[in-house]
Order: sequence, then C-alpha cells, then structure tokens
Amino acid sequence: MQTSDFLALIEEGLRALPLPAVPEGLYSPIAYALDGGGKRMRPMLTLLAHNLYSDDAEAALPIALAFEVYHNHTLLHDDLMDRADVRHGRPSVWRKWDENTAILSGDAMLIESYRLALNFQGPRRDDILSLFARTTREICEGQQYDMNFEKRTDVEMSEYMEMIRLKTSVLPAGALKAGALAADAPATDADRLYRVGEKMGLAFQLQDDLLDCYGDPATFGKRIGGDILCGKKTYLSLLALQKADVATKARLLELLAAGQEEAIAPVLEIYGALNVEHETHDAIEALYAEASAELAAVACPDERKQVLADYLTAILRRNK
Amino acid sequence: MQTSDFLALIEEGLRALPLPAVPEGLYSPIAYALDGGGKRMRPMLTLLAHNLYSDDAEAALPIALAFEVYHNHTLLHDDLMDRADVRHGRPSVWRKWDENTAILSGDAMLIESYRLALNFQGPRRDDILSLFARTTREICEGQQYDMNFEKRTDVEMSEYMEMIRLKTSVLPAGALKAGALAADAPATDADRLYRVGEKMGLAFQLQDDLLDCYGDPATFGKRIGGDILCGKKTYLSLLALQKADVATKARLLELLAAGQEEAIAPVLEIYGALNVEHETHDAIEALYAEASAELAAVACPDERKQVLADYLTAILRRNK
Repeated sequence: MQTSDFLALIEEGLRALPLPAVPEGLYSPIAYALDGGGKRMRPMLTLLAHNLYSDDAEAALPIALAFEVYHNHTLLHDDLMDRADVRHGRPSVWRKWDENTAILSGDAMLIESYRLALNFQGPRRDDILSLFARTTREICEGQQYDMNFEKRTDVEMSEYMEMIRLKTSVLPAGALKAGALAADAPATDADRLYRVGEKMGLAFQLQDDLLDCYGDPATFGKRIGGDILCGKKTYLSLLALQKADVATKARLLELLAAGQEEAIAPVLEIYGALNVEHETHDAIEALYAEASAELAAVACPDERKQVLADYLTAILRRNK
Repeated sequence: MQTSDFLALIEEGLRALPLPAVPEGLYSPIAYALDGGGKRMRPMLTLLAHNLYSDDAEAALPIALAFEVYHNHTLLHDDLMDRADVRHGRPSVWRKWDENTAILSGDAMLIESYRLALNFQGPRRDDILSLFARTTREICEGQQYDMNFEKRTDVEMSEYMEMIRLKTSVLPAGALKAGALAADAPATDADRLYRVGEKMGLAFQLQDDLLDCYGDPATFGKRIGGDILCGKKTYLSLLALQKADVATKARLLELLAAGQEEAIAPVLEIYGALNVEHETHDAIEALYAEASAELAAVACPDERKQVLADYLTAILRRNK
C-alpha cells in the first residue's frame, strides 16, 4: 500500500464517524473541523508504523483516527486560547460559531478520540491506551508552557525545545509507537519509532518557525513574519537572542515586544546578520539525520520501511 | 462500611492523584477544583453500588474517582460557558485564574478522568469503559441543549426533562451502573441501578430548581430567585407556562425575559397562584418512589441495600 491508499482509508474513516445529527450545535462544528483538510500526518504515521509489520491496515485504523480526532480537538481549543482566526484557510471554529461552541465541541472531540482508541481490539491494547493517555496529558503541559512563555522574555533554548517536544513532538511520536504496538512489534522497535517521531516533530516545528520568516508566501499560505508580529518565541528568535551582543539583544527584544508591521524587516535583518536561517536549517537537518538513523535501526526489512522513510522526507522537505 | 468510610476513601484517593508540581499553571487549578468540597455524590454512588456485591471498595476506587474528576472537569468548562463566578462558595477557576486556564486545566481533568478509568483492572472493564465514554458524550449533548434553550422561549417540558436527563442524570446513572459492573453484578441489576440513578438525577435537578425559589437562604448557600434573575428554564418556570392562561403566560415570559431583581417577587406570586411549588414537590416524590422501586427490585439482600437507600433519601431530602 502507498501513502495515497492510507490517506483514502483515513478520510473514509473520518467520514464514517458516528456523529449524530442532533444536537446540531454540538456535532456540526466537529464535522466542519474534521472536514477541514490538513495533512492527516498523525494517523498516517500510525498506519505507516503498523505497516512495517502488518498488511492489515484497517486493524490499526481506530487508533489512527483517535490521534487525528484528538489533534483536531487541540486545534479547536488552542485556536480559541490563542485567538487564531484562521485554520486551514477557513475561519476557526470559535470565529465561525462562538467561544462556547469551540469549548464544548472540542470537549466532545476529546471524548470521541478516547472512544475511538477504546474501539481498538488487538495486541498491546492496554499499552496503547496508556500511551494515548500519557501523550494527551503531555500535550496539555506543552500548551501550558507555550502560554507561560508568552509572558516571559528570558526563555532559554532548552526550555523552548522541551516545550515544543511536549506540544508538538509527543503526538507524532505516540502515533508512530501506537501503530507499532498495534502490530505487536518488538518493544525496542516501538521505542525507536517513538524517538523517530520525537525528532521528526521537533524538526517539523523548527521548519514551521523557519517558513514563517523565509517561506514563499504563495505556497506557505500564511503571511510572512506572523511570528515576529505577535512576538512569539521561536527557534529563530531564541537563537538570535543567544548569539546577539548586548546592544543587538536589547534592540531585538524591543522590536519583538513592539509586535508591529515595521518590526518585521529589521528583525529579519538581525537574523540575517546572525546567520540564524542557516543554523536553523542545520538544526533541522541534524534532527532529520537522527530520525533517519533511528528508523534505519528498526528491526524490519528495509523494503518495508521505504514508504515511511519517504513520508518523513516529504514532511521535512515541505515548503508549506 | 458506612457512607463516612467511603467518603474518606474518596477524599484520600483524590489527594493521592499524581498531579505534578509543574507546569504549575496547569495543575494547581486542578488541585484547587478537586479540593473545593462538593458532595462527592458520583464516586459515592459508584462505591455504594459496588458495595451491594463486594466488600473490597478499593477495587472500584479508580472508577469512582474517574467519575468525580470528570464531573469537576464539567464544572470548570460549564462555569466558564455560563459565566458563573462562584463554585462551592469560592471563585470559579476562570474567575480566580482566567479563561484559558479553565479551558486547558479542564481538558487535563478530562484526560485524567480517562486515565483513572483505564486504571481499573477488574471484571467488565470494557463494558465500564464504554459506559464511561457514552456517558461523557451524553453530558456534552445535555450542556449543548441547555445552551440552546437559553435562546428559546418555546421549550417544552418533555425537552427540558430530556435535557436534564443528559446533563445531570446520566452521570449518577453511569456511576451506579459502573460500580455494579465493577463487582460483576448481574446485567439486570446493573441496568436497574442505572435507572435508579436516572430517576434520582432527575429528582435531584428538580430539587435544585425548587430550592432556587423556595430554599432557606441561610442553608441553600445561593441567593433565592437566581434562576428567575437570569431567565433560566426550570421545571418550575416550564410548569407555570404550561398551566398559565394566555395573559399570565405573556406576563410570565415578559418577567423572565426582563431578568431583573424586581421580577422575582411577581414571578413567585404567579408560581404560588398556579400551585407550582407543590406540583414540583409531587414530581420529585414520584421520581423518588420510582428510584426506590427499582432499587427494591435489585437482586441482592436487603441489608446490603440499606446504606445506598439511606444515601438516596438523604440526597433527595437535602435543603442545600
């Protein structure tokens, strides 16, 4: 099976979710959110990891869908908490409906994600459910750290990396490991795949930070410099603050705190002078190499790994 | 074991929850919410139902705690959605911290409730987990209907009863049934106990509606007429609208829509003229009798039922 087959399975599974017609105010925002496109990266990782050991992709589908529905739950609540107006090129749920809808439909999605996970009947079910519980809890911690960081100017790079590990990496990591467990893979392989997801998730976030400053507006789909505009901590801003001399650091903090349109060009100029773009690119490549090395060490035939390896490459070479 | 022993077990279990110290902004609101008192009615029901068949209360404790933590999750989110400032005589979480805290700590509580439910290792585990998933989903539906009703003036009594069944009754019903299942009780008994909880939950909500108008302010702990002040649909207001003639109905709708201090006395006067207090009281007694009859039919020795029977009576004879 190829990536496109797995994607078709995921989309079909999402469309087949038993979402009742009423109360319409609860369920139609869920259908809207799940129909919003997105890469389906997390369920894809579950199916690709499962596929390393098994040809019966449907057996792992409930777990794959649980990760996707959970991920979309976080988008509903995070967009509300972050006051983000747009998601996948359309109004976010709290903007299209209202705040209470985002809260309650988001809760129902979290519950639906657990129902899906419980639906899985296969090997290592308890390990998978515990992993799902731990992963979802860690993501709450990551979001909390992210919100804490907004009020601080002294965030260290190590704190940032731990925050994005929790907020964005444990989900692909958990999705990969769960897929392996669902195929009853050896424990060492399952743990290796977890680390593949962790490295890949970190690289993914750094890529996101990079594209925000240096992406092609035509393909990226968001405005360039959005992170600078809202003074967000990113790998780039923290790296620049780390490398800058005292005067530049003061100037950079001032520009980021201002959060104005006029700040974008001078911030990019400072980044340029400090070689931030290339060092971020190097960091992404290093993480990609680590993820690839972990995958290479997974004890299954190389030809079975090709689809997953290609998928990781495509994700990290993306320009949007 | 008596009610006080079960209560001690519940409080101890809640204090022993593995809530990390950091991130403090995520976990300290959870500790605050769980330390806020409350009747612990739902976990008590789980332990009392389990006690009909088993003397090993601790075996059912994870399920009991799951229901309590889930219930407190709904309080965090409902208080935010309803803009309720006070919970158990203290500022609600969104008032003490902020809106984002109520959302994210509430999410973490929902996740913790599932972790607790998954912790249960005993008979009928899968049935209990499915019941928990269905129950939590239904409560979202109930809250949605409740919010929908705020914008409507034509809510029927049957719709109201279905809304409170979902919003408040399925939780005690599920808590009782889960306790029975955890002791491997016969399926007919487990279903009977579900109905005990359903009837009891409805009676409990009607009692709440009644106390809001006719409670003793000294013991009730809330202001009298609060529901009238915010134009809330209650059993009393819907009964009055059902019984009133055209002119009185118009006047009542007007008073409830106004939602002013000055509306309380005339609304209570209309309720008095329509005999609403006594009919609500009768409805509560009828539900109590149905719950008692279901409990009487449960196939275990009468002496084992006494603690649960006494508890139900105490809950429905409460004046606060």
